[in-house]
Amino acid sequence: MKEVGRLNQTPEFLQEKNGDLWLIEDERENMKVSYRIKEVVFSEKSPFQHVMILDSYDFGRMLVLDGVVQTTSLDGHIYNEMITHIPLSIHPNPERVLIIGGGDCGAAREVCKYENVKEIDMVEIDELVVDACKKYLPAVSGNLSDPRVNFIFNDGIKHVENIRDHYDVIIVDSSDPVGPARALFEKSFYENIHRALKEDGLMVCQSQSPLFHRSVMNQTIRHIRDLYPAVKVYTATVPTYPGGFWSFTLGSKNYDQVYVDRFEKDTKYVNHSILTTCFDVPAFLKHD
Amino acid sequence: MKEVGRLNQTPEFLQEKNGDLWLIEDERENMKVSYRIKEVVFSEKSPFQHVMILDSYDFGRMLVLDGVVQTTSLDGHIYNEMITHIPLSIHPNPERVLIIGGGDCGAAREVCKYENVKEIDMVEIDELVVDACKKYLPAVSGNLSDPRVNFIFNDGIKHVENIRDHYDVIIVDSSDPVGPARALFEKSFYENIHRALKEDGLMVCQSQSPLFHRSVMNQTIRHIRDLYPAVKVYTATVPTYPGGFWSFTLGSKNYDQVYVDRFEKDTKYVNHSILTTCFDVPAFLKHD
Repeated sequence: MKEVGRLNQTPEFLQEKNGDLWLIEDERENMKVSYRIKEVVFSEKSPFQHVMILDSYDFGRMLVLDGVVQTTSLDGHIYNEMITHIPLSIHPNPERVLIIGGGDCGAAREVCKYENVKEIDMVEIDELVVDACKKYLPAVSGNLSDPRVNFIFNDGIKHVENIRDHYDVIIVDSSDPVGPARALFEKSFYENIHRALKEDGLMVCQSQSPLFHRSVMNQTIRHIRDLYPAVKVYTATVPTYPGGFWSFTLGSKNYDQVYVDRFEKDTKYVNHSILTTCFDVPAFLKHD
Repeated sequence: MKEVGRLNQTPEFLQEKNGDLWLIEDERENMKVSYRIKEVVFSEKSPFQHVMILDSYDFGRMLVLDGVVQTTSLDGHIYNEMITHIPLSIHPNPERVLIIGGGDCGAAREVCKYENVKEIDMVEIDELVVDACKKYLPAVSGNLSDPRVNFIFNDGIKHVENIRDHYDVIIVDSSDPVGPARALFEKSFYENIHRALKEDGLMVCQSQSPLFHRSVMNQTIRHIRDLYPAVKVYTATVPTYPGGFWSFTLGSKNYDQVYVDRFEKDTKYVNHSILTTCFDVPAFLKHD
């Protein structure tokens, strides 16, 4: 890894305007968000994507993959707490947890807050993302060094293909369904996850924006409904995701109630009331 | 009013790039949002501000004041339903309602859904905003023609100065605390509102983003706590506001429970569960 710091040359994906550096996200056709950048902390190409840690004025340090903001110091905890504490407050005794993706290490960090968890397999395709986040994005990664976490640098699709009846909880912490993450939204992948779970296991995935990716969200919910008797959709406000409004879908073979009374974790977003109310989605989501 | 349609010349606040029109919001120093625009539907200067109705690709038609998006066809209902149905579900018999601001007419439209309301005074400083929204933004304004609505084109500050013991509910639907709306965030204004309310009246205001305007939000809550025995903060996800996360603060002289069972309105966002859960704010908001 090489540190970049302040450059004489404007790095890829950034633009200079009147002496200021700006990251202009180019992922969406009709709406673009630009962030004023203090400093390029890290910038390197992996075999999979272009990886940057940028220090921004409004959101602090951010992980940026191929020019698109993935998580930030300001709001990364919201997403990472929501994708972990909800399933882990539903399963009564999660011992073996699999995280697919989650290269920023924030989900693993939250799972480590559960003492009864014995094993956390974190399968991330891109080692450079994990290295960069552990070193340069501690507000999200928490400088993760818990010995229960096994880093497995592999394709999540392949990892679950040959595992049967092993995990209590599987967390699919994918990026958007473009490029390498596309297969993480396909039916066959959810079928493999179902087989990799124990007979009372449960899974959760981020299912995109209810506003901007409604068809992806609805397809994901259908895939999961086809496989699990208990399915729950929940939402959270994640300021750096388009529209701020994000959905998660949980499929469970057995348990579907949140053990609110058990929740005593040190968190910034999730609390007792969020745990019970996150499933109360707005009227327009119930019309589907 | 003059219709603008497609122009040969790029209008104020818009930029042309590769044949496409873009609105680049310039209000925030460190984060900018750009919207691709299909058509300039209306564009004119009032004595107070520059007023546009733009048709955008992702959000449909939008009201834009001095280059800043105020409300859109896609998500305007979220804000307008939240600022109206919460107070009107707490007051047991609201007959006289005052809306300060609310030029897009969306708040007034929601208040009209209450049959027991006899009088809706809508005090908006800028008549051009109301005219433009009624004519060109029906998805938000609903082509408001209810005879109970009295349009009063005046400064909201002045309107409440001399009124005593008159309204059951006052809704402060202001824009951001810059320019003409700045005084709508000052203590003396809240004192005047308190006097204009009946002895069992209640008021609500939008209190900005809990992420980006925390000091404005906290100051607003303090002002209201100084005046009312019952104060409630609630939040909603409004995609076109920075960070998507927005706060409202309610101050009440008497009532503070939501009558959920009574709620049977035709809405897109608010429902029974939102009515009860919107007060359950995330952990980080309770730390203050």
